[in-house]
Amino acid sequence: MRYQDRQEKTIRIVAVGLGNIGWRFLTHLAQKQSLLRERYALSFRLAGAADSRGAAFDAAGLDIGEVVRLKQNGQSVAGYPGCGRPGLSPLALLEAVQADALCEASPTNLSTGEPGLNVIRAALERGMHVVTANKGPLVLAFPELTALARKNGVALKFCATVCGGLPAINLGQRDLAGATISRLEALPNLTTSFILDRMAQGQSYAEALAAAQAQGCAEADPTLDVDGWDAANKLVILANSVLDFPCTLDDVQVQGITGVTQADLARAKAENKVIKLVASAVRRPDGGYTLTVAPTPLPAPPLPAPHPLAQLSGQQMGIVYHTDIYGVVSAAILEQEPIPSAMALLRDLLSIYA
Amino acid sequence: MRYQDRQEKTIRIVAVGLGNIGWRFLTHLAQKQSLLRERYALSFRLAGAADSRGAAFDAAGLDIGEVVRLKQNGQSVAGYPGCGRPGLSPLALLEAVQADALCEASPTNLSTGEPGLNVIRAALERGMHVVTANKGPLVLAFPELTALARKNGVALKFCATVCGGLPAINLGQRDLAGATISRLEALPNLTTSFILDRMAQGQSYAEALAAAQAQGCAEADPTLDVDGWDAANKLVILANSVLDFPCTLDDVQVQGITGVTQADLARAKAENKVIKLVASAVRRPDGGYTLTVAPTPLPAPPLPAPHPLAQLSGQQMGIVYHTDIYGVVSAAILEQEPIPSAMALLRDLLSIYA
Repeated sequence: MRYQDRQEKTIRIVAVGLGNIGWRFLTHLAQKQSLLRERYALSFRLAGAADSRGAAFDAAGLDIGEVVRLKQNGQSVAGYPGCGRPGLSPLALLEAVQADALCEASPTNLSTGEPGLNVIRAALERGMHVVTANKGPLVLAFPELTALARKNGVALKFCATVCGGLPAINLGQRDLAGATISRLEALPNLTTSFILDRMAQGQSYAEALAAAQAQGCAEADPTLDVDGWDAANKLVILANSVLDFPCTLDDVQVQGITGVTQADLARAKAENKVIKLVASAVRRPDGGYTLTVAPTPLPAPPLPAPHPLAQLSGQQMGIVYHTDIYGVVSAAILEQEPIPSAMALLRDLLSIYA
Repeated sequence: MRYQDRQEKTIRIVAVGLGNIGWRFLTHLAQKQSLLRERYALSFRLAGAADSRGAAFDAAGLDIGEVVRLKQNGQSVAGYPGCGRPGLSPLALLEAVQADALCEASPTNLSTGEPGLNVIRAALERGMHVVTANKGPLVLAFPELTALARKNGVALKFCATVCGGLPAINLGQRDLAGATISRLEALPNLTTSFILDRMAQGQSYAEALAAAQAQGCAEADPTLDVDGWDAANKLVILANSVLDFPCTLDDVQVQGITGVTQADLARAKAENKVIKLVASAVRRPDGGYTLTVAPTPLPAPPLPAPHPLAQLSGQQMGIVYHTDIYGVVSAAILEQEPIPSAMALLRDLLSIYA
């Protein structure tokens, strides 16, 4: 819907974290400016940006193209002509420039949540809306951060943290409002889906992992993914935000894919099943949920009732909600580059302002 | 998220149309009252209800159980003890009782939109929010009704009109905000999916149709479904609301399933495809969309890239959005009874009030 009659509003944003997600978000945000003005009467101004080496700010707005150029050349935004401040921290940046919203995409740290956690706290306390793609702060401090947002009357949005660009959280929080969710099952991790896919085609675990690393869909240290902890983090965020079940990583039974053998895969195939690393939450009689991440054989076609996640390829993420009043709702995304994950930050911004 | 500290708010609703969707909605709304109070601090009061034979109203609230009992006994709500008014029209009901929202689920009429169209107009003009499961008024008067809602500062929500309980419209309108949608493909009609499923298993068209009718998933007069017009209606609503493309039924090329032969199905099967009645919108270079409803062979498993809709059974509806910045997002619902379709009215109410 167009609101050409509405007065245009300028939203001042600060971007913290300019890695794979951060710079892609800024690139496409810049490309979308005229569409956003036309469709929602919104204009986004980059008032400040920070990476691990420093920051830059300008109340009149930084040139997004220049910021992206610096990052793609391996430089820090601190090198921004005239406005760059080497060594300026994200927290100091928030002090230095007035803005309406923080777009946070700094690296996930699951021990401390930093550097994201403190800057999210500070932004919420300053009355800024926060959109984030960073799982660490949410896994470690979900109740604290949501309470802080509520206290300050601002939004804390994080749909980029689960299943990449798939609105898995929105679907659960908004579209299943009023429901009791008896079961949730997700494939939130691309690396393990890719590896299991390749293994099902006959590759060894080592070959499949090497292929994933060569294609950039596995880290040099793949532990977080293959041991199931990335999926577990996402499950903790889903459980807290969608299931309203306060929990931490300690509440999740986690088993990764390193123990999956060719014999397991052959047995599954003989039964017309495929093995996926499924993150699941099953409702208990007491109203809580049992949280599990484990390699799970799922019924596949041509069985008459294939599992909705069984058909997803190694480039897809997906989720299934079993509900009392809305049936069984499933959703999936095909994401060949992390652009949708990055643009989930825009989705969150528009859910606040549009 | 719970808001137990928020003050409880009572929402006065009027329900017009108490058929399959209407009474199911009321039944489950009544069952959900304590959950809705606890989770959203909301209480819904049925201030009035109307069917084709009359109405009942009570500012203090009708007993939903009594209304449902009447309907399940084949009686009119006009027989409600003390408050029933035989012959009272929905329009007169709106005059007679103060309410905050209209829940409209009267039968779809594609020539006139009545009786839904006039009562929706009247409610919007009175400043009431409207949630509806009725396609007719939207297909016939989408621009008028959305303008009227905007002018009066109220919501007009209709996610129950497309793909049953699947939030297909919300997904497009909200979660794909900021995107350009290059293509949309939907399976919005259960009857045709069921029939094509059975035909693919070897039944003749007549046998499959009879089975659909026996299971209550096809009308005695199946024309609207099998000729593709039900899917076309839903496509028109999707195009207007999600694609921001003003259009009517005249803009849709419609082909139903009555011409699908066993030879077509056999040829598709030999190519590992399944034939589904697909409603699609494809973006043209001029920014408009080409709208089509037609039986379409879709690549199925075990092909390496099966179509997301190819695996859906005859009890599922689904949608796929191809976007520029959010990848390819698909969603599906398994809906064995029309409860999710009915409760989409609750989803819409909660999107307004929760």
